[in-house]
Amino acid sequence: MQNPFFKNCGPFKLSDILCVLNIDDIDIDMSVKINDIKDLFSSEINEITFFHSKKYKDIANNTKASFCLTTENLKDELPKNCKPIIVNNVLVSTSMVTSKFYPDSINDNFDDSVIEIKDTEFKNKIKFGKNVLIGENVKFGKNCLIGHNTIIEKNVSIGNNSSIGSNCIIRNTFIKDNVKILDNCVIGKHGFGFFPNDNSNLRYPHIGIVIIEDNCEIGCGSTIDRGSMSNTIIGKNSFLDNQIHVAHNVKIGKNSIIAGQVGIAGSSIIGNNVKIGGQVGISGHLKIGNNVEIAGGSGVIKDVPDNSKIMGYPSKNIREFLKENK
Amino acid sequence: MQNPFFKNCGPFKLSDILCVLNIDDIDIDMSVKINDIKDLFSSEINEITFFHSKKYKDIANNTKASFCLTTENLKDELPKNCKPIIVNNVLVSTSMVTSKFYPDSINDNFDDSVIEIKDTEFKNKIKFGKNVLIGENVKFGKNCLIGHNTIIEKNVSIGNNSSIGSNCIIRNTFIKDNVKILDNCVIGKHGFGFFPNDNSNLRYPHIGIVIIEDNCEIGCGSTIDRGSMSNTIIGKNSFLDNQIHVAHNVKIGKNSIIAGQVGIAGSSIIGNNVKIGGQVGISGHLKIGNNVEIAGGSGVIKDVPDNSKIMGYPSKNIREFLKENK
Amino acid sequence: MQNPFFKNCGPFKLSDILCVLNIDDIDIDMSVKINDIKDLFSSEINEITFFHSKKYKDIANNTKASFCLTTENLKDELPKNCKPIIVNNVLVSTSMVTSKFYPDSINDNFDDSVIEIKDTEFKNKIKFGKNVLIGENVKFGKNCLIGHNTIIEKNVSIGNNSSIGSNCIIRNTFIKDNVKILDNCVIGKHGFGFFPNDNSNLRYPHIGIVIIEDNCEIGCGSTIDRGSMSNTIIGKNSFLDNQIHVAHNVKIGKNSIIAGQVGIAGSSIIGNNVKIGGQVGISGHLKIGNNVEIAGGSGVIKDVPDNSKIMGYPSKNIREFLKENK
Repeated sequence: MQNPFFKNCGPFKLSDILCVLNIDDIDIDMSVKINDIKDLFSSEINEITFFHSKKYKDIANNTKASFCLTTENLKDELPKNCKPIIVNNVLVSTSMVTSKFYPDSINDNFDDSVIEIKDTEFKNKIKFGKNVLIGENVKFGKNCLIGHNTIIEKNVSIGNNSSIGSNCIIRNTFIKDNVKILDNCVIGKHGFGFFPNDNSNLRYPHIGIVIIEDNCEIGCGSTIDRGSMSNTIIGKNSFLDNQIHVAHNVKIGKNSIIAGQVGIAGSSIIGNNVKIGGQVGISGHLKIGNNVEIAGGSGVIKDVPDNSKIMGYPSKNIREFLKENK
Repeated sequence: MQNPFFKNCGPFKLSDILCVLNIDDIDIDMSVKINDIKDLFSSEINEITFFHSKKYKDIANNTKASFCLTTENLKDELPKNCKPIIVNNVLVSTSMVTSKFYPDSINDNFDDSVIEIKDTEFKNKIKFGKNVLIGENVKFGKNCLIGHNTIIEKNVSIGNNSSIGSNCIIRNTFIKDNVKILDNCVIGKHGFGFFPNDNSNLRYPHIGIVIIEDNCEIGCGSTIDRGSMSNTIIGKNSFLDNQIHVAHNVKIGKNSIIAGQVGIAGSSIIGNNVKIGGQVGISGHLKIGNNVEIAGGSGVIKDVPDNSKIMGYPSKNIREFLKENK
Repeated sequence: MQNPFFKNCGPFKLSDILCVLNIDDIDIDMSVKINDIKDLFSSEINEITFFHSKKYKDIANNTKASFCLTTENLKDELPKNCKPIIVNNVLVSTSMVTSKFYPDSINDNFDDSVIEIKDTEFKNKIKFGKNVLIGENVKFGKNCLIGHNTIIEKNVSIGNNSSIGSNCIIRNTFIKDNVKILDNCVIGKHGFGFFPNDNSNLRYPHIGIVIIEDNCEIGCGSTIDRGSMSNTIIGKNSFLDNQIHVAHNVKIGKNSIIAGQVGIAGSSIIGNNVKIGGQVGISGHLKIGNNVEIAGGSGVIKDVPDNSKIMGYPSKNIREFLKENK
């Protein structure tokens, strides 16, 4: 799929990409054209990908990418179709190449293409409040509602029977059918991802989007950040309460229920039918299985298998926790 | 009191109500008229109530309701004046009957009756910012202030000398005298209450309101949800800091002080003169006594007697906790 | 420095100040003029300060103030140039004197001087969204961006290349160069500081400001309160994620990184190069050293020396915590 929110300035010749990375002594045909940069799973032939942690070895084994930014240690995990390009710091190199393809994806400035909804084609098609602002190329399904003072930035797409509350800001997001976004949400801004650097941190690109599947509800004052190289996804019929923070690249499954003030750090994956109590914190890059129940206030710092009931900080089996903490 | 925010479509004949519940073999006069549905405590003669947990047995013993949705196990707790109607799932049945009386109480769409305050009778009566929107039948006392971009939806009532900040959304709420609501608050939306259901959860009605008593202060970015069958109440002279979440049906007493980022789950009752430190989480359906002090960061999962000082997760006596955690 | 946000109604004769405090039997020249009230560190000759806790003894030893509100117990820590004025409750007395100098600093009403930016001198100087409101005497550097619906209240100053998101409210704040404030932030409101009082708490003045140094980023939905008698400061190149609460008088050093939903209570001081994980809570009046790392979910209740890595509630050495909590 073509990125709907950021213009791909490619294709680029491999030599142009290696130039950005300051690499020259490499034994590959430098004139081959590279169309895009994507993660290991999504990338296709004539695209470049990146591989920085053994954790992703199984996906690396099967990548369809033609090239991969990686390290000496990891390169042998790549299949024959994918030529390794060895770099010192995979994430920094990925950031540099992504910035070349998508120069607009670093900053997150407000969309100055927006106009008042009453001056758009939607004037007679959807029900809307006062001062609603709509960017270029926004799409709405049937029977949508948009509350007062809400801003829907360019290229956002909203399905049938969906309702957005008042004072919301939505960008870089696909919202499917029968979704309710309550008041004061900010959805689709870039994640908290940057390379720390004395005096001036270096932000890396966020070319991912937020996808909110059918029948979801997102509570007031919540923030859902878009992904960096992959997408942030809220699965079908999952309900989120107020003041929740979902960081970049997080994927939440179907039919999950997440209570107020929960925070889910970057790149964690939450299964289906998961119940998460209020104020739970989930660290980054974790995998929480299906049917897991996490008691309110818990802090989760490692993967959780399917069907577990956990509590505590760090969280453990709930019976064990309650026995130890009578 | 008549519900000020949702139109009661009753009275209905008992037969109409039993029809909704798919009940027919019951030995009661089916033509009797039922005026309303309320909780055990508030309901009156010729009204229907519901009773689903032994926890509420003392209130059930004294209810004035004429009918009560309940179970075989609990029915004998009801007084003679109150005829039990036995159902499989009390809460689901309550939801169905409430929806019959109050069909508008399921959704929480933005109020499209609002107009700019400068076009209302309040133009010369209160001090207001830019872009303030006011719904039908809103009431203000003397000397009120309303900040920029704030939305006061229909039927809301605000007392004397009260001040609402900028970017607030207030609905289904009674605010008394000398109250300060700071910026970015959302007050009065429906709670996080629904019946989980594969593919499409079933929201239940929220016919309760939010009541904020005299002299309270509510910090920036806080959310206070209205009650489902009873009200959410912030008692006189209680002060709440920023980013606090108060769930539906919660009742907070007088002179309480609640620090930033606290979350109080549904239906919990907090006493008078309670001090709650930052980021405390309080589970649902608990009773926190008077003069209780809860240290910042604690997680409270059971009732707390008057005058306790507690800390920890799960919280316990503060001295004990600190001794164990040197 | 003269207070840029609150008008100083002084100087006052010492006799006028003692009158407010209801003190008359004191052996000082009552006609001497007092120019201002400041904290121990900032105050100068012919100003009055306050000293209420042994914790601040070293600063008290060197204060330049001519007078100091303090107690019998503490008065001997003051240098010869500074005459003690003994009071029962130092903070209440400080509040009363501050209110005399700065009567406008108690309330935090919306700024009714704001007008639409398109009607100001900034119309062609900066890039701005719809419905942006600007107060009197606001200053902007070059190349600034202001998102939709944002309110910049009077006297706020914003440096070069800084960007403010949509739906923000900024007051009593100095923002330096290359700063990014993301959407929905409220910056500069008064802190959660008051004297509890049955029936009607007594708010004390907040004459401090918020200073955000060069290259900082503040995430969506964050709240940063201004100081009471000193300033709240976010140091150069510190990055804050979404939904963070920074209370009054907090000082954060340079190059620090603070993840989502962290709360920092009043008057705590955070060093340089500090990394704070998501949902961490830091109690008030603490000192967190340089290069400290605090694991997500921790609760910090005492000072933390430089270079520590801590975790837990209450937090301790991270290795120790993880060993005890396998």
